[in-house]
Amino acid sequence: MATNPIPYKIYLSEDEIPKQWYNLNAVMQHKHEPFLNPATLQPCKPEELKAVFCDECVDQELNRTDVYIDIPEDIRSFYKMYRPSPLVRAYVLEKALGTPAHIYYKFEGNNTSGSHKLNSAVAQAYYAKKQGLKSVTTETGAGQWGTALSMACAFYGLDLSVYMVKVSSEQKPYRKEVMRTYGAKVIPSPSDTTEAGRKILKEFPGTGGSLGCAISEAVEKAVTTPACRYVLGSVLDHVVLHQSVIGLESKAAMDKYGVQPDVIIGCVGGGSNFGGLIAPFMGDKILGKNDIEFIGVEPASCPSLTRGKFVYDFCDSAKITPLAKMYTLGCEFMPSANHAGGLRYHGMSPIVSELYHEGLMRAVAVEQTKVFEAAEQFARTEGILPAPESSHAIRVAIDEALKCKETGEAKTILFGLTGTGYFDMAAYKQYNDGTMTDSIPTDEDLAKGFASIPDIPQNK
Amino acid sequence: MATNPIPYKIYLSEDEIPKQWYNLNAVMQHKHEPFLNPATLQPCKPEELKAVFCDECVDQELNRTDVYIDIPEDIRSFYKMYRPSPLVRAYVLEKALGTPAHIYYKFEGNNTSGSHKLNSAVAQAYYAKKQGLKSVTTETGAGQWGTALSMACAFYGLDLSVYMVKVSSEQKPYRKEVMRTYGAKVIPSPSDTTEAGRKILKEFPGTGGSLGCAISEAVEKAVTTPACRYVLGSVLDHVVLHQSVIGLESKAAMDKYGVQPDVIIGCVGGGSNFGGLIAPFMGDKILGKNDIEFIGVEPASCPSLTRGKFVYDFCDSAKITPLAKMYTLGCEFMPSANHAGGLRYHGMSPIVSELYHEGLMRAVAVEQTKVFEAAEQFARTEGILPAPESSHAIRVAIDEALKCKETGEAKTILFGLTGTGYFDMAAYKQYNDGTMTDSIPTDEDLAKGFASIPDIPQNK
Repeated sequence: MATNPIPYKIYLSEDEIPKQWYNLNAVMQHKHEPFLNPATLQPCKPEELKAVFCDECVDQELNRTDVYIDIPEDIRSFYKMYRPSPLVRAYVLEKALGTPAHIYYKFEGNNTSGSHKLNSAVAQAYYAKKQGLKSVTTETGAGQWGTALSMACAFYGLDLSVYMVKVSSEQKPYRKEVMRTYGAKVIPSPSDTTEAGRKILKEFPGTGGSLGCAISEAVEKAVTTPACRYVLGSVLDHVVLHQSVIGLESKAAMDKYGVQPDVIIGCVGGGSNFGGLIAPFMGDKILGKNDIEFIGVEPASCPSLTRGKFVYDFCDSAKITPLAKMYTLGCEFMPSANHAGGLRYHGMSPIVSELYHEGLMRAVAVEQTKVFEAAEQFARTEGILPAPESSHAIRVAIDEALKCKETGEAKTILFGLTGTGYFDMAAYKQYNDGTMTDSIPTDEDLAKGFASIPDIPQNK
Repeated sequence: MATNPIPYKIYLSEDEIPKQWYNLNAVMQHKHEPFLNPATLQPCKPEELKAVFCDECVDQELNRTDVYIDIPEDIRSFYKMYRPSPLVRAYVLEKALGTPAHIYYKFEGNNTSGSHKLNSAVAQAYYAKKQGLKSVTTETGAGQWGTALSMACAFYGLDLSVYMVKVSSEQKPYRKEVMRTYGAKVIPSPSDTTEAGRKILKEFPGTGGSLGCAISEAVEKAVTTPACRYVLGSVLDHVVLHQSVIGLESKAAMDKYGVQPDVIIGCVGGGSNFGGLIAPFMGDKILGKNDIEFIGVEPASCPSLTRGKFVYDFCDSAKITPLAKMYTLGCEFMPSANHAGGLRYHGMSPIVSELYHEGLMRAVAVEQTKVFEAAEQFARTEGILPAPESSHAIRVAIDEALKCKETGEAKTILFGLTGTGYFDMAAYKQYNDGTMTDSIPTDEDLAKGFASIPDIPQNK
């Protein structure tokens, strides 16, 4: 048990940055179904994936045996520039809520990318460099992933082309400037630099673009450029693996003070932050070592876990990626335009999907006005202005703490505060102005999305 | 001497947050000249100042005897939410420069206000609350100070009215939203809420406002509202006092590893960050305990130390504040509109002015394109996207490190990294686009500013 008083912020030393990532895949008793090649409906072969992704990332993606995977010293050096991230005891929020619960959050926003995305960006850029590649490509919507990858590529001396959804690049010109400051080439998508882009531009001359189209362009650019690969910021197993640094540090910090979480809460979009946060704790649960309650929080406007189907689907709306067995709203599902809070992805990490399917975690969908209410309360008490995505976790952490207030239970709640909201002030403005509304898809809306799920034997 | 290897980031524990501020004023052998009442040209009486500022702040302002002044436990509690701030060893930058110099920076940007401003905002809000006030007022230009004060007032439950220069509130709508999220009332200035504002609006209906006008409005609002005072974010002695927490933590962190700086560098606008960073080191220098070189860095477009006059002048362009003996370009001096980097203040903290006058420090003026070049290099190596203001210090730190490369000296350089540039991307865009230019005032420009210095006996 804890003997020392717990500080506001528990910082580990740089020596305590994990030396290995935690591969949840290796611990899971039921492994998730393999990715399928959409043309053959056979499991993707390593060499097929290696034409698109870096070799080492593919090896990690397919590794289902090693629980611990070494973090190269070069990556740990970069981690030292912004890690260990603090585990914060939310004393002020607890007091404001009048709850007996103990609330902790792992804060991943203290770096210029503003989020946890950097944890995987660094790793993927490093592996690309090590493989002798000259450049990588990616797509970005809101821009956090693009920013993180720009930072990593600047560090390792890799050229980077970011296909940014055109409407986002116009609405968030400053995100684009952060990426440019780090030397990235930011290309509004659709563009005339790829076949896919040119085709879309011809068909829909005035289009603002879509993430699906940006993915198509980034992948095409990668596979048609010598010494170039495509990198992805969420969903895939190797991204969840890299993000396990969040959970490992959280566990080390809590262990130091003899604290054991009763509940762990994280927001889920593609699932990489949540998967990384829970990884070592969930591994222990699978091994019968704890009985922690895990809660993934998704927006009510994009409820892939709570209202989606557990089937094979494309990872992108342009239907060019492999098929993944996951909870999905259908690859063509688009959340309502009035949804401001990120987490707009139609599917879910296959690992997280499998955990959910097995009942090892539960999921909650929350409405965005309630999310921003929690964000405001958190900002005013804990000082940090949270990203809308992260605020989904805050909402449910507060709700759980308020339940404790009713029952008198002094539960220990840990949640992931993935990032800051400095580039999301347009959404805060809506909330401050009282013009923000909620958008919950009707069953009809969902049916339209489900119609885009491929009609293949595996889904029967 | 250091026995342990120095980590990338030296974090102190929360117990090591200073328990007392360092009052440089008490150590200085020649005290700076007192503030004068512009009507009588006599030193301002405490009661005159207390009509405008909080009582305790005025007492601190006039305290020239106590070297150490206790930090109330309540303020230390708030400090624990974002302090101690890290002292970072710039290993990656050193390597990129190929310099034998050891570069350290004290990073004050890891909080939502994005800068060191919070250190004094918390203290001033606390004292206002303790005095039983219901509200405070202030003005803000770029918005960092307004944001910091919004956070502090949200915490202590004080109402806050921020008069924001109208053109800034239009150009930086998102800064405004951050303040609103913390519950502040943000009023574009000039406004119809004050006599001063109404007068300006009548004379200049389309005006975009000015800092001088915003100060007038904030002060008028404070003195005409019951249980309300005005608070200021820089220049004054009590603000420098609060900012000494930066220097004290830096010194404690360096002492821990047996490191002694040879050079300390900070940007200077109003002078509070620089004054706070150097405070305990400069105190020791005055006491003959070290021979550190102190360098204040100002923009070439607003060169108050390097090209200003050391005279009595108003602290604001509206000529309503007391007169301060300081280096000034004249209270009506306005830097060129193409100057993007903050630090636009015409005058300088009386403490810093006196130190400069006595030759205890030197000053360097740098051009903004060179500043952004340094900012970019820093961002790409050290990862942090710096504020334009902070980047003035980076520029000179890099220049000093490059001199070491020539001479082979392994100097230890400490500089203050006051904040992040997330809300300054319009300036970065100019730099990235290659459209940024420098603006150095001509002697004629300076003469116009000097003409606004009051023609009083003290200035003969």
